[in-house]
Amino acid sequence: SRSINLAVIPGDGIGQEVVAQGLKVLSAVLPQDVKLETKEYDFGARRYHATGETLTDADLEQLKRHDAILLGAIGDPSVPSGVLERGFLLKLRFAFDHHVNLRPSKLLPGVATPLAGQPEIDFVVVREGTEGPYTGNGGTIRKGTPHEVATEVSVNTAFGVERVVRDAFARAQARPRKKLALVHKNNVLTFAGHLWTNIFNKVAEEFPEVTTEYMHVDAATIYLVTQPERFDVIVTDNLFGDIITDLAAAISGGIGVAASGNINPSGEFPSMFEPVHGSAPDIAGQGKADPSATVLSVALLLRHLGYEAEAARIEEAVSADLAERVGKPARTTDEIGDTLAVRVAG
Amino acid sequence: SRSINLAVIPGDGIGQEVVAQGLKVLSAVLPQDVKLETKEYDFGARRYHATGETLTDADLEQLKRHDAILLGAIGDPSVPSGVLERGFLLKLRFAFDHHVNLRPSKLLPGVATPLAGQPEIDFVVVREGTEGPYTGNGGTIRKGTPHEVATEVSVNTAFGVERVVRDAFARAQARPRKKLALVHKNNVLTFAGHLWTNIFNKVAEEFPEVTTEYMHVDAATIYLVTQPERFDVIVTDNLFGDIITDLAAAISGGIGVAASGNINPSGEFPSMFEPVHGSAPDIAGQGKADPSATVLSVALLLRHLGYEAEAARIEEAVSADLAERVGKPARTTDEIGDTLAVRVAG
Ligand SMILES: CC(C)[C@H](C(=O)O)[C@@H](O)C(=O)O
Ligand SMILES: CC(C)[C@H](C(=O)O)[C@@H](O)C(=O)O
Repeated sequence: SRSINLAVIPGDGIGQEVVAQGLKVLSAVLPQDVKLETKEYDFGARRYHATGETLTDADLEQLKRHDAILLGAIGDPSVPSGVLERGFLLKLRFAFDHHVNLRPSKLLPGVATPLAGQPEIDFVVVREGTEGPYTGNGGTIRKGTPHEVATEVSVNTAFGVERVVRDAFARAQARPRKKLALVHKNNVLTFAGHLWTNIFNKVAEEFPEVTTEYMHVDAATIYLVTQPERFDVIVTDNLFGDIITDLAAAISGGIGVAASGNINPSGEFPSMFEPVHGSAPDIAGQGKADPSATVLSVALLLRHLGYEAEAARIEEAVSADLAERVGKPARTTDEIGDTLAVRVAG
Repeated sequence: SRSINLAVIPGDGIGQEVVAQGLKVLSAVLPQDVKLETKEYDFGARRYHATGETLTDADLEQLKRHDAILLGAIGDPSVPSGVLERGFLLKLRFAFDHHVNLRPSKLLPGVATPLAGQPEIDFVVVREGTEGPYTGNGGTIRKGTPHEVATEVSVNTAFGVERVVRDAFARAQARPRKKLALVHKNNVLTFAGHLWTNIFNKVAEEFPEVTTEYMHVDAATIYLVTQPERFDVIVTDNLFGDIITDLAAAISGGIGVAASGNINPSGEFPSMFEPVHGSAPDIAGQGKADPSATVLSVALLLRHLGYEAEAARIEEAVSADLAERVGKPARTTDEIGDTLAVRVAG
């Protein structure tokens, strides 16, 4: 019989509320024969304040035993900027080699977008997750003096770039339009840019059916708002991916519905699924948070574990629910979760 | 009697066409007592193919003698990516210490925007121009092998950050709303991020009337499309500035109207003014390019040289011209230039 052994990290702020709905929908969608085991972990601001720890080696050992991880959100104004981001979120992505950071953008029917004319948006960004300017390389000298110098080193390897580019080509190949755009800034960041561009062009030869294009990251932000229908799959560096996926979320319904997967394709380590939004401390505990992004992240999780039909059912449920919302009074986090659970069970 | 000694660099593609209009409008707007001298320089792809040179020390010596520089666009598909960008454009910005890269965004009446609901957009981005990931620091080992490693080093100094932050505060102070946002990614790029944030907070104490906020660059792309009216002045790093000003241009009328100034505030070196758009080789020579961005760059140039009334006349003329276009057949580059020249002379 089948089973899913899930690590659950609600985290800070609205994390608790949205993860509760994600689990509700997950339980509802799973066939009876699938045994769901969950273990909750208390990472985030509370743990940091209590112990000074963000993510220990022992924590990683425990997390490693799960099939996948569902994360709510990490971050709180009481913790200095960077401590939890670098000490927990990025540490986990790096430790578990989550090199494919998958972020789909689809403007669902009836969903509001800041763009005029309700364009067709249906693309997925494959963001590299373990290299680039995110490695924490760099440093500071003469800190706090008028002679301070701070550096940040973007590290890019053929190994790291090729595997994510290959993953993106395979995804493009599997989609009806078979289009892949490389987004970088190879006219300025020439060292990293040439590495990315050369590998992209080399791997392209193995995928003759995939139509490719190259686009500078600055130009990509223009096309995302003027011609978003142009995109099918985008592959890009860790930092550029961070930036353009927030923009992508904004144009395709907002971060309330933006899901993501931090994927280790080999399965050597568990993959982690999380909404793109943060912990939103300003609305935490008020039942105002939209759990759709977390629920859609659960769909990505199920697809990753091979439950394609269940993933699709969740996506259809969220889509139908969003379409039904139009013109109706706002529901609570819990009510949305309940509605979705009923829909997917149906 | 007054005089302006201008270096003119038409450059590649549509550069020639749009610069011609910029000069036409400049001549028309200047009072009779101002003597305008121009000298044209042939930089760009043609010169590179003919001589292998992009910008020599002798060129810099000559350019240095001018009061300001008007640039059309540099770049051509026949030249490998990065050669003209690093070898000319960035070399010039660095050599002449253009540390204030000024990019205003204003959605003028009647101008189309991809955003729904015609929001009020009127902000200016102060982009650092001589540091960050643009320094060309970094390198490649084992090039072309499966073990290639490419690095890009972002270099940030207290000196470089403080002067541009100070410039941005002064600009915010001089504007009616007196708001300044620092855009960075200090939760991930913690070395550079803390330098920027600390200096920003320190300088803020000297400008108690200026309301400040901090925003991550990814979040900034969201607000630019969902609440662009929120912004007044933004100060940011070279690369983040590159990315968000293309997005800013896209939402406020497109790169056809986006002007920029590469400013050396001390006046030690001439400042350079250029449209944000590139050389657009696909439409070059067809009279299709909109010269408005170049003409608005001429306004920034005049303001920089102390001709405030003339700068304002140009901006009013472009604004009126854009409003008149609505529903009319497209005019040629030349016709738009002629119309604007008549307007500013009026
Ligand atoms: C919180 C932060 C470290 C993170 C990132 O920059 O990757 C977030 O913005 C994201 O996109 O998941
Ligand atoms: C052409 C390129 C080097 C340049 C930059 O990245 O600064 C351009 O995009 C700009 O914004 O002026």
